Parts: sequence; structure tokens; C-alpha cells
Amino acid sequence: MRVVADVNVTPIGAGASLSSHIAACEEIIEEAGLKYRLHAHGTNLEGSWDEVMRVVKRCHDVLHERGAPRVDSAIRIATASDKDQSLEGRIDKVEQKID
Amino acid sequence: MRVVADVNVTPIGAGASLSSHIAACEEIIEEAGLKYRLHAHGTNLEGSWDEVMRVVKRCHDVLHERGAPRVDSAIRIATASDKDQSLEGRIDKVEQKID
Amino acid sequence: MRVVADVNVTPIGAGASLSSHIAACEEIIEEAGLKYRLHAHGTNLEGSWDEVMRVVKRCHDVLHERGAPRVDSAIRIATASDKDQSLEGRIDKVEQKID
Amino acid sequence: MRVVADVNVTPIGAGASLSSHIAACEEIIEEAGLKYRLHAHGTNLEGSWDEVMRVVKRCHDVLHERGAPRVDSAIRIATASDKDQSLEGRIDKVEQKID
Repeated sequence: MRVVADVNVTPIGAGASLSSHIAACEEIIEEAGLKYRLHAHGTNLEGSWDEVMRVVKRCHDVLHERGAPRVDSAIRIATASDKDQSLEGRIDKVEQKID
Repeated sequence: MRVVADVNVTPIGAGASLSSHIAACEEIIEEAGLKYRLHAHGTNLEGSWDEVMRVVKRCHDVLHERGAPRVDSAIRIATASDKDQSLEGRIDKVEQKID
Repeated sequence: MRVVADVNVTPIGAGASLSSHIAACEEIIEEAGLKYRLHAHGTNLEGSWDEVMRVVKRCHDVLHERGAPRVDSAIRIATASDKDQSLEGRIDKVEQKID
Repeated sequence: MRVVADVNVTPIGAGASLSSHIAACEEIIEEAGLKYRLHAHGTNLEGSWDEVMRVVKRCHDVLHERGAPRVDSAIRIATASDKDQSLEGRIDKVEQKID
């Protein structure tokens, strides 16, 4: 099952600055070879359901190893049965309809 | 990895009334034998990472089979390395501290 | 505009234990006189759009005053033009359709 | 109170294709003069708390006018008391720390 997802991972109890922790997650995504795009509140991801969930689970493991006692993630997952989806396709379709 | 999760599954293109679709998801969760609690914007779930993700994936499959061409889920996942978590524990801890 | 909302407020940089901060938010909601229900990943709220947003904004102010340098909230908002919504109504409708 | 937000607006009961509805929301944000950036699961927004909430509320109104009986939004809001935040700043800080 192909998905277009959005993931926001928040380490809790590991200080106020999260950027280095989020950078560690971006490296996990890069290593997994998934198509991704960082934005100001998370990262868009494209891949199979299992690939995406394995990456997010790995982010939780790594952030715990980096010293965060609690990790919260907010994941959005979109699946479609009537068409193929892609990161770019979802954006292009909207932009084409903006007057 | 034990998680306490929250899941909101939205079928799109299957009409305005979602309650019967959400009821079908509750039955999937019940069959999976996970501890769960329905609320007004989703369902709290307790289980292993893989159990919870398998259930949400099954919800997407079933809602597509029920005629929804698109399905969006919003999943919140909490993991902790310094304690055991439970649905009740997270609520009790807050209620005990309300003056 | 009446809304049924769900709010998850996370103080960042204020330690690993969040329950006392969340309890402070529950007291803000109680004082505002809104109908609400705590669950394991947030709080369901019922009220007008402006009432709900004023309460969440107040939570951010108070958590900053309590020493959290960053505060993240995830808010879900449901509006309907074809019926009146309520916390209980959204839950009852689903429960009635579970076999 | 300055915020960096992320908004995902979903019209329900208005068909499977959402792109034209989302385009209508992008036009509302453009008219409000806020800094924004579309991504595959929503739109990052920068502005004051009240400006951002006014725009999202307007999106609900317009989508109901366009024929959607139900509208669900998922809003993420980040506030900081120890620094100024911006869309670009949040992204640059992470990218600078990726090896």
C-alpha cells in the first residue's frame, strides 16, 4: 500500500532545542532511501506503509538513545484506491487550481 | 515497543456521514484485542507499535473496500523509555494534579 | 460557529513529565466554562470557535509563564453546516452502529 | 503572540477530489497577506495567533459555502518565549545540522 505521509517527531525531556534531534531523524529517512521533503512543522514522506512506519519507529528508537525519555509523533497518512499519489502530484494539483 | 496512541481515520469521497465507517474501524480494533477508548475526535489505543500500526492499516483497507476512494489518518504515538505507559495512567496522572 | 475540537498541548524544554502542565490547562478550560473531556492524548472541547481558540491561546501563555520556552499545540476542529454537533452526539452515533 | 503554524483543512461530503477546495483556502491565505508555504499534507503559516486563526475560520466558512456539509481542520501551532520564530528559520536550523 503506497502512502503519502507527514511526520512530526517531538522528543520530550531533551531540552528546548529540537533541531539536532530532527536532523538525526532526517538522516534516518535519507538512509532508508525514501523520497522526503522537510517543512516547518514536519517532513512529507512517500513510500509503502511498512517503509514509512519502520522509519518513524526507528526515529523513536534513536531519539530515546539520544537521551529523550519521551517521544511523541504525529503522523498523517493518505492512501488512495482510485489513483497513484506522489508528493509533487498533491502539491501540483492544488497550485494548478489557484487563480 | 509499547505505545499509547490516538487514531483519527477519515474516509473521503464516501459521503458526509462518517459514523458507520468509524464503527467499522472500532470493530477491527475490538477483533485485534487491543485496549481502546473512543472519544469525539478519534480513538485512544494501547499496544505494541506493530499491533497498533497493523490495526490502522487494516482500517484503511476496509474503508477502501467500503467504497471510500481516499482515506486520511492522523495518528499520535507516545513512547517512553523511563516508565511503563497506559491509557488510564496518562489520564489519572493529570486528574490527580487538577486543583 | 459551533465547533467540536480536540486539543493536545505540549510544553517543550520544561522536563519530561507533562501531567502538571496539562492539569494547569484543564483548569483554564474549566474556568472558561466549556464542556470538555480529557483523554489519553488530549482534551475534547465543545464551544464557539472563538471560545475554543481563546482557551488554547491562554494555555500557551500560562505554560510559557510556568517556564516552558516552547509550546506546541495540535488542534482538531470539526464544523458542520447540516446539523448541530456535540461531544456526546459524535460518540453515541458511532457506538450505535457497532455490531 | 507570533506563531508558526501548519494547517490541513479537509472538506467532508464534497467528493473525493479536494484540490480545488484547498486552492480556495490558499487564496484566502494569500488575501490575508500571511507568509505561507504549501506542502503535500497542509500549509505552513506565519503570523500572529489571531491572524492565523481568522484565516482558518474563514476557510471553514468558504468550504461550507462551496457545498461541504462538514469541514475538519488539523492545526499545529508553535509558540516560543525565548526567541523569534520563522518558517525559514525552523527549516534552516535543521538543515544546518544534517551531516
